[in-house]
Order: sequence, then C-alpha cells, then structure tokens
Amino acid sequence: MFGIVGVPIIEVAMAAQAAGIRYVGMRNEQAVEACRLYSKFSARPSSLEAIPSVVEKAVRTSMYGRPGACYVDIAGDMVNAKVDRILSCCPTPPVSVADQGAITEAISVLKEAKRPLVIIGKGAAYGRAETALREFVEMSGLPFLPTPMGKGVLPDDHPNCVAAARSRALLQADVVLLLGARLNWMLHFGLPPRFNPDVKIIQVDLCAEEMGNNVRPAVALLGDINAIVTQLLERVHEDGWKYSSDTEWWSALKDKIAANAKISKALALQSTVPMNYYTVFHHVSQLLPPDCIIVSEGANTMDIGRTMLNNYLPRHRLDAGTFGTMGVGLGFAIAAATVEKSENSKGQRIVCVEGDSAFGFSGMEVETMCRYNLPVVIIVVNNNGIYSGVDPETWKEMAKMGDLTSIAPPVTLLPEARYDEVMTAFGGRGFLVRTVEELRSALQISLDDWERPSLLNVLIDPSSDRKQQVYIYVLVWFTWLSF
Amino acid sequence: MFGIVGVPIIEVAMAAQAAGIRYVGMRNEQAVEACRLYSKFSARPSSLEAIPSVVEKAVRTSMYGRPGACYVDIAGDMVNAKVDRILSCCPTPPVSVADQGAITEAISVLKEAKRPLVIIGKGAAYGRAETALREFVEMSGLPFLPTPMGKGVLPDDHPNCVAAARSRALLQADVVLLLGARLNWMLHFGLPPRFNPDVKIIQVDLCAEEMGNNVRPAVALLGDINAIVTQLLERVHEDGWKYSSDTEWWSALKDKIAANAKISKALALQSTVPMNYYTVFHHVSQLLPPDCIIVSEGANTMDIGRTMLNNYLPRHRLDAGTFGTMGVGLGFAIAAATVEKSENSKGQRIVCVEGDSAFGFSGMEVETMCRYNLPVVIIVVNNNGIYSGVDPETWKEMAKMGDLTSIAPPVTLLPEARYDEVMTAFGGRGFLVRTVEELRSALQISLDDWERPSLLNVLIDPSSDRKQQVYIYVLVWFTWLSF
Amino acid sequence: MFGIVGVPIIEVAMAAQAAGIRYVGMRNEQAVEACRLYSKFSARPSSLEAIPSVVEKAVRTSMYGRPGACYVDIAGDMVNAKVDRILSCCPTPPVSVADQGAITEAISVLKEAKRPLVIIGKGAAYGRAETALREFVEMSGLPFLPTPMGKGVLPDDHPNCVAAARSRALLQADVVLLLGARLNWMLHFGLPPRFNPDVKIIQVDLCAEEMGNNVRPAVALLGDINAIVTQLLERVHEDGWKYSSDTEWWSALKDKIAANAKISKALALQSTVPMNYYTVFHHVSQLLPPDCIIVSEGANTMDIGRTMLNNYLPRHRLDAGTFGTMGVGLGFAIAAATVEKSENSKGQRIVCVEGDSAFGFSGMEVETMCRYNLPVVIIVVNNNGIYSGVDPETWKEMAKMGDLTSIAPPVTLLPEARYDEVMTAFGGRGFLVRTVEELRSALQISLDDWERPSLLNVLIDPSSDRKQQVYIYVLVWFTWLSF
Amino acid sequence: MFGIVGVPIIEVAMAAQAAGIRYVGMRNEQAVEACRLYSKFSARPSSLEAIPSVVEKAVRTSMYGRPGACYVDIAGDMVNAKVDRILSCCPTPPVSVADQGAITEAISVLKEAKRPLVIIGKGAAYGRAETALREFVEMSGLPFLPTPMGKGVLPDDHPNCVAAARSRALLQADVVLLLGARLNWMLHFGLPPRFNPDVKIIQVDLCAEEMGNNVRPAVALLGDINAIVTQLLERVHEDGWKYSSDTEWWSALKDKIAANAKISKALALQSTVPMNYYTVFHHVSQLLPPDCIIVSEGANTMDIGRTMLNNYLPRHRLDAGTFGTMGVGLGFAIAAATVEKSENSKGQRIVCVEGDSAFGFSGMEVETMCRYNLPVVIIVVNNNGIYSGVDPETWKEMAKMGDLTSIAPPVTLLPEARYDEVMTAFGGRGFLVRTVEELRSALQISLDDWERPSLLNVLIDPSSDRKQQVYIYVLVWFTWLSF
Repeated sequence: MFGIVGVPIIEVAMAAQAAGIRYVGMRNEQAVEACRLYSKFSARPSSLEAIPSVVEKAVRTSMYGRPGACYVDIAGDMVNAKVDRILSCCPTPPVSVADQGAITEAISVLKEAKRPLVIIGKGAAYGRAETALREFVEMSGLPFLPTPMGKGVLPDDHPNCVAAARSRALLQADVVLLLGARLNWMLHFGLPPRFNPDVKIIQVDLCAEEMGNNVRPAVALLGDINAIVTQLLERVHEDGWKYSSDTEWWSALKDKIAANAKISKALALQSTVPMNYYTVFHHVSQLLPPDCIIVSEGANTMDIGRTMLNNYLPRHRLDAGTFGTMGVGLGFAIAAATVEKSENSKGQRIVCVEGDSAFGFSGMEVETMCRYNLPVVIIVVNNNGIYSGVDPETWKEMAKMGDLTSIAPPVTLLPEARYDEVMTAFGGRGFLVRTVEELRSALQISLDDWERPSLLNVLIDPSSDRKQQVYIYVLVWFTWLSF
Repeated sequence: MFGIVGVPIIEVAMAAQAAGIRYVGMRNEQAVEACRLYSKFSARPSSLEAIPSVVEKAVRTSMYGRPGACYVDIAGDMVNAKVDRILSCCPTPPVSVADQGAITEAISVLKEAKRPLVIIGKGAAYGRAETALREFVEMSGLPFLPTPMGKGVLPDDHPNCVAAARSRALLQADVVLLLGARLNWMLHFGLPPRFNPDVKIIQVDLCAEEMGNNVRPAVALLGDINAIVTQLLERVHEDGWKYSSDTEWWSALKDKIAANAKISKALALQSTVPMNYYTVFHHVSQLLPPDCIIVSEGANTMDIGRTMLNNYLPRHRLDAGTFGTMGVGLGFAIAAATVEKSENSKGQRIVCVEGDSAFGFSGMEVETMCRYNLPVVIIVVNNNGIYSGVDPETWKEMAKMGDLTSIAPPVTLLPEARYDEVMTAFGGRGFLVRTVEELRSALQISLDDWERPSLLNVLIDPSSDRKQQVYIYVLVWFTWLSF
Repeated sequence: MFGIVGVPIIEVAMAAQAAGIRYVGMRNEQAVEACRLYSKFSARPSSLEAIPSVVEKAVRTSMYGRPGACYVDIAGDMVNAKVDRILSCCPTPPVSVADQGAITEAISVLKEAKRPLVIIGKGAAYGRAETALREFVEMSGLPFLPTPMGKGVLPDDHPNCVAAARSRALLQADVVLLLGARLNWMLHFGLPPRFNPDVKIIQVDLCAEEMGNNVRPAVALLGDINAIVTQLLERVHEDGWKYSSDTEWWSALKDKIAANAKISKALALQSTVPMNYYTVFHHVSQLLPPDCIIVSEGANTMDIGRTMLNNYLPRHRLDAGTFGTMGVGLGFAIAAATVEKSENSKGQRIVCVEGDSAFGFSGMEVETMCRYNLPVVIIVVNNNGIYSGVDPETWKEMAKMGDLTSIAPPVTLLPEARYDEVMTAFGGRGFLVRTVEELRSALQISLDDWERPSLLNVLIDPSSDRKQQVYIYVLVWFTWLSF
Repeated sequence: MFGIVGVPIIEVAMAAQAAGIRYVGMRNEQAVEACRLYSKFSARPSSLEAIPSVVEKAVRTSMYGRPGACYVDIAGDMVNAKVDRILSCCPTPPVSVADQGAITEAISVLKEAKRPLVIIGKGAAYGRAETALREFVEMSGLPFLPTPMGKGVLPDDHPNCVAAARSRALLQADVVLLLGARLNWMLHFGLPPRFNPDVKIIQVDLCAEEMGNNVRPAVALLGDINAIVTQLLERVHEDGWKYSSDTEWWSALKDKIAANAKISKALALQSTVPMNYYTVFHHVSQLLPPDCIIVSEGANTMDIGRTMLNNYLPRHRLDAGTFGTMGVGLGFAIAAATVEKSENSKGQRIVCVEGDSAFGFSGMEVETMCRYNLPVVIIVVNNNGIYSGVDPETWKEMAKMGDLTSIAPPVTLLPEARYDEVMTAFGGRGFLVRTVEELRSALQISLDDWERPSLLNVLIDPSSDRKQQVYIYVLVWFTWLSF
C-alpha cells in the first residue's frame, strides 16, 4: 500500500520545490509540510540512523487502521548510503471484532429483508475477507455487487454476482450489507433517487468515523471485515438460515442481467474495423489468465473495461480510485510487478489497461519496466484522446487538414500515435493492433513472454458515425449507471 | 511566465486529489488551497463568467512586481465552453525608478572601486534592460558576469564578459553591481570564502524585501532595472567616467580566462568514441543559430552546458531554475515554441538540451510537440543516467551481466535507451548519435526542418576509465565553481 | 509594524499545539508552517546564535515593500538567554519613484478633471508622505478623503477634507487620485453603484500587484508615495496649476458637509441619560489632546468613533483593519505606549476606544499595562454587547427576569459589567461613567495622570425607545456609507 | 468533546483573518482551510439549511474513533437565525472488541509477569471503562498508575494506586498493561532510562495506528477499551487468577509510597505565610467535594496540583493536555458547567485550579461565567508569574524599586495582582487569600454558593529563601518524575 500509492504524492514535493517562490535556500522541510494534509504520515529522516524507524512508522501507519498513503522524503545524499541497523517489519495489523449484540441485530435485520443486497468494497479486499465472505454468500444465498476496487474478492462470474444489474439492485434493495465501502459519489451517497429512501444499511467498517456518513445505518458493525464476516457466518451457520433463490427479487435481478448481457454481447461481436471498446474488451477478456492483476486508468477505457474484464481473485485490480486520478497506472503496475518478481517466481501477470490519454501522464515509466525486465503487458486503448463533447465530423475534417494547431480541442491527442514504439525504444515488445486477429495474436505472444514488457497499441474508432457514437457513449454511462 | 511555470504546479492539484484521504466528495477547492503557498495567486473561477477576470488577475499578477507562478483551476465542464466577455490583457507592468540621491551614491561607490564587477541576474532579463545595459557596460568599461538565467542579456562572447573567470571575479571584486540577482546559494550567499569579506554591494532590485538578504548593501537601488540602468548610464555619460581596461584587475581576469579556455578546449577536441560532454557541447555550440532559445535541465548536462553553450540574446535561456527542478524542460520548450509560432512566422528555434534522467520526467510531452508540429530540437545527452557516486568499473560489470535488477543503483537508467524512437513514435525526427560527424549532421538536418520536432539521442561515455572520469567530474564543479 | 501586528498571529501557534492531533512529540516547526500563509516571513531560529539575523530579517521584511506581519518563534529555553552578537537594525526602506512620463500623464488627467478627489490611504501614512501631501493638497486646491487608517495624514479638520460628505464625493468624482489605498470592500471595489462608472483612477502604490485590482487605472504610478507626491507637487508648482475653489463640485460638497454636520450635532447635544454614541464621542473629542494616538476596535464604536474623533497627525490611528478583527486593540495600545515611553520622554497619550465586546477579547492585557506603568487611557463604550438584530423591548424583559441564561442571544454581554474594576484590580485607575459630567471629569483626570493606565467604563443606552434606536442604527450606516 | 476543545481552534480563524495579507475581500473559506490540519473535520455550512448536517457530522466525528476537535465556521448572518430541520444526535459510538486469540495471549503474558503494572490513560476515561476496570483491578490484584487525564477512572485513593511511586513503578515493571495511553513524552516514550529495556507492553487502544509507536508491543489489543477490559475480566474470572499482594514488587512499591508521602506531608503542613504550593493543595484537597470536576492549567500549579488533588470519579479532570497549552482552562470550565447546569439540577461543582500566568490568557471569560450564573470556583495560585530561572533575591530587589519596566524578566507578572477583583467586577464572589484560615473559609463559602461563580486569589511565596525555593523546585520535578 505504502509503495503503491506513494508514487503520485512525491509529485507534491517536486512541485513545491519547483515553485520555490517563498523560500530562501533549499529546505525540504516544506515538501514534508506540503504533503502532510494529503497523507497519513509525512516525515523526512534527519539522519541516516533515523531512516529505519521513520520507514517502519510509515509502512506501519500505511497498513494499520484504514490504509492510506504515507510520505517519506529521503535526502539526496542518503539515497545510496547504507545503515547498519536492521528493523524487522511491523506485525500484521491488529484485529478487532464487532460486538456480539450488534451482530445479533444485524442478523435480525438481514432475515427480515425482502430484497437484500451485499455490497463488497475495497475494504473487504484490504481486510482479506475473501474466504469467509465466499462461504457467507454461498450459505446465505444473498446477491452481491462489488465496487470497482472490490471486484475479485468474490469472482465476477460467481452466480450470486449481480454487477450486470447494478442500477436495479441499488434502487430496489430494502436492506444493504455494506462491507468496507463508502457511501460517496461512487455509490450515489446511498440516497434517492438511486437508492430506496427506506433502505436499511448494515454498515461494516474498521473506520468508526465512516459510520453514518450521508446515511445513518440501521446497524453499525465496527472492526475488521474478515473477522466480522466470520461472526456473521457463524450465526448464519448456527441458524441454518438461507435467503431463498426462489424469490421475486432474484427473478427480477436475473432477468435484468440477461437483458443487459444481450446488448453488451451484440456490441462485443461487431466485426468492423476500427474496433469498438466492447469488441476489444471481449477478446482481451477471453485471453487473460484468470489470476492476472489488472491495473486500469482512463475514462471510457476504465469505465467499460470495469464491466467487461472479470476479476477472479481478490486484490487483483488496481484502478484510478475514488478521484479518478490519471497517471498512476504505470506506477501501480511497476510496484505490483516488483512484488511478484521479488518473490522468486514468475508470479502473476500484470496487465495494465490504459486509455491513451491516461498513458500519456507517465508513459516514460516503460523505461523502468525495461530496465528491470518487468513482464508487464500494457494495453493502450487508443481512440486518439477523444473524450466527451467532441464531434466526430469535426474530427474527420481536422484530420484531413493535417494541422491541428488551431482547431484541435484540448482534450484530443495526436491521431494514430505509435505508443508501441515508445516501448520498443527501450527494448520491450511493441504491437500495433487494428483487428481482432492482431489483438488476439499480440496479446498471446505478450503473455507467453516472461522476460520483458509488452505494449499493445490498440487503435479503435474515434470517428464512427454519430449515431453509433452516441449509442456507445450512452452505453458507457448505461454500463456504469444503469445496469 | 504564467503559462510556463504553471506546468508543474498543476501536479500539486492532481496529487491532492489522488491522495484524497480526508475529503468526502470531489472538492477542487482543496487543490486551490494546496497551491496557495507556492504561487502568487491561486483561484478557481466559480462560474464561466468569472473566468476572464480571474485569468486577467492571474496573468497580471504573474507579470507585475517580481514575476512568479499563478495557479488557475478550470473545472472540467468549462474547458470546452465559450465566454462572451472579452477582457483585454493588462498593460505592461508599471515602472518605478531609483531615487536620484541613491544613484549619486552608487556612482560614487563605483568610481572608487579597484576591482569592480557587474553581476547580471534574470531580473535584468525580465526587466528588458539589455539595450541600456549594453551601453552602460561598454561606456563604463566594467567586467560582467551573468547568472544562469541572466545569460544573454549581454552576449556571452561580449569582450567584457568574465564568465570564464567566474570564481576569481567573485572572490576578488571589491565592488559588485548586482542587477536583479539574489544572493542565494547560486551566488554563495555573497559571503566568504567565495566573496571578499569587505565587498561593497550595490544592489539593484524591484523587490524591496530582497534588499539586505544575507549581505547589507552599500547602496540599495529599488525599482525597474531597465530604468535604473538608464539612470546610471546617464550619470556615467554626463561624467564621462570609464573604468580603465589597463588595470591589474582586467589583466588578472583575462589571464584566468585564457588559462581556463585552454583546459576546456583540450577536452572539447578529444576525438574518442563515446564522446565526452565537452566535445558534444563544443560542436553543438558551433551549429546553433545565435538567436535560438536554449532550454536546459539536468545535472552535468545543465552545469557544463551552461558554460559551453553561448547565449547571444536576452530571455533566450530557460533552465531548471534556483531549485534545479527536473521535468520542466519540455513544458518550457512547448510554451516557448507556441509563443514563437503563434506570432505567425517561423520564429526562432527552440533547442532543448536535456540530461537523460531529466528527459525521463516528462518525455511523453514529445506527443504534444508532434501534435502541434512544434519544431523543437531536443538534444538528450545520454550517459545512461549515471550520476555522482557510481563506480564505472561496477557499471561495466553490471552491463555485462545483463540483469540490472538486483545491482543497478537507483540513480542509473537503462543503457543505450533509444530516446530518439520515443520521438519517431509520434512522427517527429529521431537520431541516434555516437560520433562527432553524426552529431553535426543530425543537428544540421534538424535545424533545417521547420515542420516538425527532432530528437538527438547523443550517447556519451558512462564508463571511461576512472582517472578521466574523476577528471571530468572535478571539472564539472571546476566549471561551475572555480572558473 | 512587526511587534504590533505580531500579537494575534501567535495565537495560531498556540492553537496548533492545542489541537495536537497529528503530531507525535512537541515539534514547533508546525507552528512556523501554520503561520507561513498569513505572514510575510515565518521562522524559528534553530540556535541562540541564529536569533539576531532571523529577527533582523523579520523586522526588515515587515517594513520593506508593502508592510506586513512576520512571525518569529523563539524556543522557551532561549527566552531569558543572551546572545553576544549585536546586529544593527536595517536602514530605512529603500525608495523608488515614478517614471516621469507617467507623472506627466497623471498631471494631464488631473487637470482635465471636473470633479476631482484625492483619497488618502494608510499607504500614505506608512510612506510618511504628510509634508509633501499637505503642500500638494493646498497648492492644488483638491478635496480629499481619508480611509480609516489614512486619517491624520492630513488633519481631519483641514478645509479640504470632505470626509463628512464621503458618499457624495465617491459617487460623483470623475477623477480619483488614489494614494496608497486598495479598492477593496472598504472602498466598494471602486465600482458602481458607489462610484461613477466612468471614473478615472490615478493609482499610486508601491505594490505593483495592486495595480489594476478591480478597476484598471487610467494612470499607474508605482513607487514610494512620499516620493511620488513630491514629484506631482513639483509639477503642479512648475505649472502654477490650481483647481478652483469656486466650482459647482466644491459647492455641492460643502452643502452636503453642512447638512450632515447638523444632524450629527443634534444627536451629540442630546442630554438624556444613558448617553448615546454621539454624545459620548462629542465630549471625548473636545478633551483629547490633538497629538494623542487613537486605538480603536468594535462595531458601532469603531464606525461612529471614526467619524467623530478627529486625527490631526499621521500614524496616530490604529484600528481593527481591513478585516475588522477584534481583540487587537489592547496589544496595539501596549506596543504604541512602549514605543513612546522608551524614547525617554512622556511621549504622546495613547487613547484606546473600545466596544465592550471588543474589550472582552483581550481585556486581561490591562495587567501588562499596569505592570509596566504604561499610561494608556481606555474608554470602553459599553452598551452591554448589544449588536445588530436585538430588539430593545426583549432586552428590557430579559433584564427584568434576572436570568439571561435561557434567553440572552449569543451576541449580548452582561449588563452593567464593571470593566473599570478590571483595571483597578491591577492598580490602574477606573471610572464608572454615566453622565456627560462624569465623562468629562474622568477623562480629564486620566489625561493628567502620566504614571498609570486608566479605564473609563462609559454606560450608554442599550434600550432607548425603538424609534430612536432605529434612527441611530440607520445613522451608523449613514455615517459610514452615506455622508 | 466537540464543544470543549473547539474553543482554542476558533483563534486560528481569527488570526487568519487578522493577518489577511494575501486575500482580497472577506473569504472565510481560508479559516476553514487553516484549521484543516489541526482538526478531524473542518467546514463552513454554505447555507442555513446545511447547518444541521454539518454540525451532526462535526459532533459525530469528534466522538467516533479517537476523539478530537472539529471546527465549524458559522457565518455571522446565520448566528441568530433558525432552521426548521431537526436532526437527532448521532447514536453512541459503535463498539469493537479484541480478537479472542489476542486476549488469550495477553492473559498469558500477564500471568508470567513478576512486576506487572497497569497504566490507565485518558482513553480509558473516554471509553467509560471504569466499572469493568475496577472489577478487573480488584480481582487481579494488580498495581495501577493513571496518566494526568486518566486520573479518576479509578479513585486516586484506591489501595492499588501506585501514583505516589510513579518513577519506581515505571522503571522496574516487567509487564505493562497500557490502557488507552500513548507512549509519548509524558510516558517517556516507553524507553530506557525511564523504563525497563525488556518491558513487555500489552497495548490496548482503539486507534490501530497507535500500536507500536516507539515500542513494539508484546500483544496489541485493538478496540473499545471498556469492551476489552471486560474480555480480560471474564478470563481472569474464569481462571480465578490473582497477582499476589504478598510479593517483593508490592512491598517495594508500598515502601516508596510511604517515603514520598512523608516528604510531601512535611511541606503541606508548613504554616509559614506566604504559603507554599503543598500547603495550598493540601487544604484545598480536604475541602473539595469528591465528585467535583477539576479543571487545571499552569506549570507548577498543574504539576504539583496533579499529585495533591485527588480525583475520585472518571472524566472529572480536564487539564492542559499533551502539549501543555495555556488559556484553555476557563473555556473548559464554562463548557463543563453548562453541561452540568443544563441537566436541570445543581450538578457537580466545577473547580478551576489555575496558575496566575495561565489565568491571564483568558481571564475575561469570568464575564461569561457571571452572565450565565455558572457556579464555577476558580482558584488562582498566584506566585506573581515566577517561573523557572528567576532568582528570588533579584525579585526582591525589583519589587523594592517599584518600576519593573526595565528589569522584570518577560516571564514574571505584576506582584499581588487582584485577580479576585476581576471576578467581582462582573458580579461574582472574590477572595484575597493569604493564610490557611482564609483559604479554608473562602473555599467553603464558595462551595456553598450555587448561584454564582467565585475566584480565590491565593497569594503564595515567590521569594522564600533560596534554599527552600530550590528544594521546592526540585520537588516539583521530583513529584512528577521521581515518585
């Protein structure tokens, strides 16, 4: 956690130094202050000897309690130095469990539900609740929905997963068991019109301050999510209770899932060139090994990819997070690959699915991947930077004129940029991909090569006719908001 | 100024959002607050209608008084919108001049000097003092020294320029006329052992708070530097005063210049392959058009390049600045090229001289250059990221072993990275350069092409034998500190 | 400046320590960071030896350029220590003057004015422009208006002062010579409906960034205000130009002044007990020595007092400033008294006119006054804390009931509090004042005693009948906005 | 919690406005930003309608998880307004309990201890663990030690309390059960030389990030302290385990307690006038009702008072806290008295024990106490502001000379200031106290009066002969560090 989310924070320090308006001399203390508001712990070891304990505190603080970024500023003259002192890593985070009375209350609310729903947030992933949670879901028979970073705690193809009927599920549920997810904008604040006004929330979180944000919960279960799910499971087990699969609620959800699958499949199977998003993700999805780690950032790329690329294992998805911050994907991929590699095995594949605009924020990091021979597979879904509000006819005209200087809107990028050559420049594999066949072949070759990174530059259609564009565009939101 | 230095500041906002630990919902007000300490003005227009006056204030504030960065945060949904209101740009900054009594005092101190020195800072460049200053220097016969960003206010090859005897000049001067430069670490705080303890400073600055920082000036001339130099010039003119070229001081400076030139030339003419820094800069220097704008960042690349690449025109050098911040060079180059291009002529060439490590911070910006056909010439001086503290023998061993994962120190980069191909990936020209001939040819071709950007990936020697390495290394500092 | 405005800033540090949520151990570096955004310089000397130069920089920075607060944090164990190093105070601030071309332009605009107005801001006071300014105003015959802290640069009873016709003057002027004042809310941003939309501003300021804020000036004169007024004066003198006293503009202003004086006098001569604001200020005004320093804070007390208490000397008024911050008055008075006293003479009287609510913020500082025998005269204008929105009938009822606990609104204070006894508790003089006679007698006794501080607790009417209350209330704003 | 600790934070906002250097106009958003780093939640309701939910979030956040200050900025024009919306207060904080495995481990470590010690921190008070904790301590027979704000969770006169042998207990304990206390400077970081280097810590806290700070715990029990103590109690109960009172450890502790009591009693019974600290606290202690709430701030006053004034009930002590912040005492007392009074009974007495310097920070708040008839008893222990480093002989000389202006060190205050008259000025009771008899009488009268506040101005000896002074001074630290 520390290493991964630490990356973008470092930018603050650089920017602080860059501006440097108010400071006489070269004081890094200000970088530390600049990061204080945006991290759980921010410090600069004042001596070589202090580094181990500062790093220990940073790592520990990033993992204990609600996980979060920490910032440690190491002075330039200490980077290559050695410290004799060895400090072992902190123990795994301490665990607390919910009060038994509250568990009883939660079970009682659950049993009375007509249209229950389990929402699995990233807290359940961080809390390593997967084993208990699978048993709980299967024993209780409840439908569940993952948040973006909660995907994979249970497999996306689990029969109880109702992600493909997300909107319906949220809107009509009368009881929600919320496991380590915040009721922020990504969950529509838990409020109407996207939620039932009378919904009862059973809120499970290890952060007490999160309880009651936006909606007052019917029951608040404070503590470690794995421990609490285990408590719930024991109770369900004792009672032998199960929510029947033979209910109107399950029928409604399943009908909705089937209807949505049909629309999505139609798009996925289109064989036009250039390809559309759905076609790309459909084929990628078929080839990816089930245990790969998917890193993702972008706008459409991340939104549609989230619905089309299944996760089957917990903590195997790293995306741009709550604030949709661009530029973090390659850093995430490097961190993940380093962890996998350092465990002295091939480990699991890291597949980095990037919008072309997102890739541009930190694309030079492919040099790092090549330097350390990290076998990351990067898939750039390249629509030339087109995003909301661009008229494809205008785009065609612009492209003809050659010179985009005066007319290209600021949210477009260079047409047909060869991102694959950025990778080959440093010795990695690069592929320019226009067709389904090229896509499948390039991806297979990349996945077979464990010695070096690859980049697939997948050209998709930025100027398909307006009708379809609108249709796809609507579907993007449909995907995210309306399933 | 506004546009140029604005680039890295934006990172703060992104990082703030990225961290997002403490915020419920998506509030950008925090980005504005995060930038407040590091900019002269920081704001987010609350409506479309407010944009013109906020931008007017930001631009005006960035230029008036001591120039500095401003931060304006435009909400995503306003980026492509139009505002009807037209607001003309602010007038040129108001000008103030020094008190006549202080001018009289300054002239009197100058006339009594035995070993006078003029230091030309970037304030003289911002203040557009070049015409008056050239007349003043020539009429008064005084030796001068530019700071890094003050280079070019007077041409580096001006006969009165004593940059090649920098250390000697600073150490022995008894009167310094300091024009728009700060006595910070780059000028050794104006203190012994690098300055004469009895030196009298005539401090010329438009920022009153700067007066007396680190050294109390003999005379403080507050106001616009161009106006004040004009005041000094008038007085010198009236008095017909001139510092004799026939002094011990001038002889000492000229002897030192000649001695240093000899050492530097010997290195520049070495014909070994791989090349060394001095050879590269020697040949680049011969080919660059005198009116080109030189952007520079890096460690050795910037330090040595500063002494070898002459500037002949004011405000034609943009470098990493007081804090040596990496990652700003390509943004500077794009801004400069856009300004040149938008004036509806070919304008002047932008040449961006980058260390390979510096290039890595924002190398993806070549996409922007290609998208807008900006004819920037990028020269990457590529020593594989080697910096202080790396033992070349170790490096050779590492290179042989192929896998750098476990042994490469964090300050090295991938050997022989093809930065040129990062440019060709987006349609620009790329050159791999190993010899003097290749260097001269590639640079000439690039300078002849006004249609698109070029990148010269100049491989220099990271593993020459230790003796020479040390020698060069010492010379770097010699260059900067001891001339 | 440094000492005076430093007082409230120290609170930030204390509050930072008080909260102490995020810090392990006792680090004061954070206090320094907390103040950085709100001061021109913020530092904590790291050693005893560093104190002199940090203090020198703080004092110098607070005075040079636009004056402002600086924060220096001295560690507890250094407070009673001695440093051997003596560092002389910085020289008076360097002076810059306006460009002659701009002066010519300004004079030309002035001469064409039909309804000219000079506005004298606190910048003219800080810039010590009084002598030149008096000569300029008298030679040019222009009407002038001081801002609250600009009062006294020229005497309030000067025949050219049109403060008593403030609103009219602002609304109808066609040319404004703005001397060291900001076009912020206190000057209605320089915009309609309070200003003529076509008004031409000649803006004189030493802060370049201030030029053009809210209104683009016809002429911008950048530099030291005293120097610039001298430049203007010389030109007026050369030209022999004078704005005629025989104009419609002067007639209109004088008529308005006379009409307003009549209303105000009627209120001032009311002999009811309890007294009203106007009566109190009328008699205080008659007794104060013309050279006294008036410190003031409060709401009605400061607003009405400003119009009724004349200043005759520059820099003899210290009030709550642009943001109306309460709690600064007694600190200002102590600082002013210390400066007067330390110059080894009786100096000038410090008279501190406080609203009762304002006094409450830092009333304990009378201990400091008594400890050092500082002969400050404090006049608390005590209306029991009543401020806007309180119904006097309700107040009467509340007073009858005795217990205010449940009904007193949060903006009222204890009726008839004996603030005078807070002063006598520490050995100063205290007076309870209800009538005009008591007021005049107590004030005279206080002014005659140079050995110790005094406090007059002047009870005025919080529950006069509604009609009059409303009338007075309206007049308060009338005073400030509509004269 | 919210109301109480909110007080000093408000200062930040005022100071921010006071400085006002960088802001055009009157924006309070900055006050909110200034407080963000020093509070758990900082916000300004943008409309009247938003107030209830912002206040709800602030109150909830201040109580849930680790308690802490929150800042809410209400715009001036909303202070007297009404909102129709009613929002009920949040439920009591959710409770989590420790993992049973960890409990087992903790019990096992405890049983093996030779020299066990329980440390009761303020977290145990906030967590309302008193009932379970008393049963646990009595059943287990363990010695305990409260931290300053942990005093009263168990009565200070409990037979198992070893506060009077604090230093010995900390130094020799081999197992410490740490209940809601931080290992910061107040507990000497849990490190040698004040702690046994091999001590095993059983750390009980609801804040996961606190685990392992400075010392890695043998066992970490995360969760609600009351719940966890109950878990431990159940186990002790089941096992029938008890630490024998017949051990060397108990003997050593009891011997030390007896020896210290003797020294302290000798000082307490001194009958000289002026009194010393010990005499004052001895008699105050005898008269205070056992259920009173003691508020305390100051240096010696707080340190010695802490050891001499017993607390018998939990959450009945409010002191200056971890950072020793002065100026918070009267605000704490008002808040406590308001809570007691609002419950429609006389409630419990609030006794505010203040150093004279501490009282000076916010002494004007007695007006608030009088306005609302809050029956607070303030005891000012008045040594004329003398603090460390002042030589009493010098002080005598100064007092003779009358004028302290030039010689009084900055840490002294006015001799014999009548703080009692500050109270009578507003209608409260005031007493000047010099002798034991006066002290006892005044305190009894004050405690008998439930209608209004009282202030006892207790003059103690600032200039007793040096030997004794040193002795007392040493004892202060002895008291705190060496018992």
